[in-house]
Amino acid sequence: MTHAIALDVGGTTIKAGLVAPCGVLAAQRTRPTPQEPQALADTLADLARELRAHAVEMGLQLVNHVGIAVPGIVDEDVGIGVYSANLGWRDAPLKAMFEEAIGAPVAFGHDVRSGALAEMVWGTGSPTMIYLAIGTGIGAAVVLAGTTFNNHGYAGELGQALVSLHGRDVVLEHYASASGIVEQYARRSGIPAREINGAEEVFAAARSGNDHARATIEVAVTLLARSLGATLAILGSMDIVLGGGLARAGADLTEPLTQALTHRLRISPMPSVRPAKLGSWSQCLGAGYRALVAAGEIVIEPAGCDGMGTAREPGEPQ
Amino acid sequence: MTHAIALDVGGTTIKAGLVAPCGVLAAQRTRPTPQEPQALADTLADLARELRAHAVEMGLQLVNHVGIAVPGIVDEDVGIGVYSANLGWRDAPLKAMFEEAIGAPVAFGHDVRSGALAEMVWGTGSPTMIYLAIGTGIGAAVVLAGTTFNNHGYAGELGQALVSLHGRDVVLEHYASASGIVEQYARRSGIPAREINGAEEVFAAARSGNDHARATIEVAVTLLARSLGATLAILGSMDIVLGGGLARAGADLTEPLTQALTHRLRISPMPSVRPAKLGSWSQCLGAGYRALVAAGEIVIEPAGCDGMGTAREPGEPQ
Repeated sequence: MTHAIALDVGGTTIKAGLVAPCGVLAAQRTRPTPQEPQALADTLADLARELRAHAVEMGLQLVNHVGIAVPGIVDEDVGIGVYSANLGWRDAPLKAMFEEAIGAPVAFGHDVRSGALAEMVWGTGSPTMIYLAIGTGIGAAVVLAGTTFNNHGYAGELGQALVSLHGRDVVLEHYASASGIVEQYARRSGIPAREINGAEEVFAAARSGNDHARATIEVAVTLLARSLGATLAILGSMDIVLGGGLARAGADLTEPLTQALTHRLRISPMPSVRPAKLGSWSQCLGAGYRALVAAGEIVIEPAGCDGMGTAREPGEPQ
Repeated sequence: MTHAIALDVGGTTIKAGLVAPCGVLAAQRTRPTPQEPQALADTLADLARELRAHAVEMGLQLVNHVGIAVPGIVDEDVGIGVYSANLGWRDAPLKAMFEEAIGAPVAFGHDVRSGALAEMVWGTGSPTMIYLAIGTGIGAAVVLAGTTFNNHGYAGELGQALVSLHGRDVVLEHYASASGIVEQYARRSGIPAREINGAEEVFAAARSGNDHARATIEVAVTLLARSLGATLAILGSMDIVLGGGLARAGADLTEPLTQALTHRLRISPMPSVRPAKLGSWSQCLGAGYRALVAAGEIVIEPAGCDGMGTAREPGEPQ
């Protein structure tokens, strides 16, 4: 089967692999992320070479396009990394640099939006959704009728937006990201944050009746509902898909969030809130998806903004 | 010049007229709105006949399509009035009923979304924006790359959504619509609401230093910013166009709202907040726009959800 080389540039780690049109991920590799664009391009080229050699060895066909997902503010349409606080670039012509280093056309995209596309085609299957990647921060991707809404790269910066809590304005991700939940639980309980084993421990403590944990999660859910409520009122009800590390909380998160949103939206239909089905390699899968689409190995049925787009493999019945 | 018959069904009044592709509105008529769908269809047919006769008399050409804008929850794609509290319909096949009564194809749309389209093409010119119609209630329309985002009719129901105020959840339009501003000012000042001459009087009182009026408007602006902030973080910065009666407040509303949104969004680019350029006939103009598009008299350049659509008259250079 044809595969695409897919590279997901994280803040500390690059995830690389070969992605097939059925969504299977083969030959997974990881590598530390160099902090400078040219060094990064060279490392990506190394990984691409390594995966290409692996494909030859395994007798796998590869598409010419290489899929690459990067964090920060990313303008997919022009191939520019507008800004990344973590990786320190500003208006870097990443797509051109990567193509030069790798010697192949690059299908270039934002990491959270790539994860959302993978989730759309190989995970929950929602062609119109708000996808939240909740980990250290909170990134959002809006998928409308099968394509992401980019707005020159500025869509999705939800985590840093203010939300009101007890009459004060607070930064959403300080309370509702996986890290924020750990920090707030540490503050309430007096347990040092380094001794808390991630947000999962806070959800477990809440399940066993710990009041500090319950209050921490209640605040996180309330602030997520406040942030999403007006957006759903304006856009109309659509699926909310929760990805990133916090997706593992499952119904402990989706159920109270559904309730809180239903309360806020009143006359609109109840949104469906569900955990993402793909795990921590979703962004790498999404990078592969972009390459397979660019190479014509996956065909997107075009649709208007108010219709439904669908992705299918060529030859698959429509 | 070719014109389209355009009919805007309001809660109490129908506005009717002839709309030219340059956005000129001729032969304006108004008529009380019958409360029952069939009686409404007959009245619309009467108005269409009257406007057709007027066009003949004036030597104006008419397109075959008639544009009709209706309130409530409207599914444009299937031609159904899903729900209107005011007009009492539920799942009414309005487009088919209107076509039967008028004897012509109908370009059918939601009133606020029609107003937003008119604003896009003949007003502020923003192809990607959130348009708010602020009057008795607050309706929203999202225009993405030149087309409205409908979501089966459920997009735009912002006014009834909850927003948090001093730790309580309140209904946005009770505080931030033109009527809400009058009511809140009446409550604070002790002046009976019926003696207050609309939200304009409250803005005027605030300008001359009245503390009750200032506080009323400050709350309205804060709640609008809270409702729009997360949406702009998720979608990325885009124009906010304020229509409806409250648009007349001009800079008294747009300036503090810009400030409040800039505060909330932090890392995202500052949105442009501006008053709509079209007045109270914008929805009728939008109904005409839909008919002219349906008849091929205005050509929309298609674009992806992340690109920019443009509308032009046929023959106009691209």
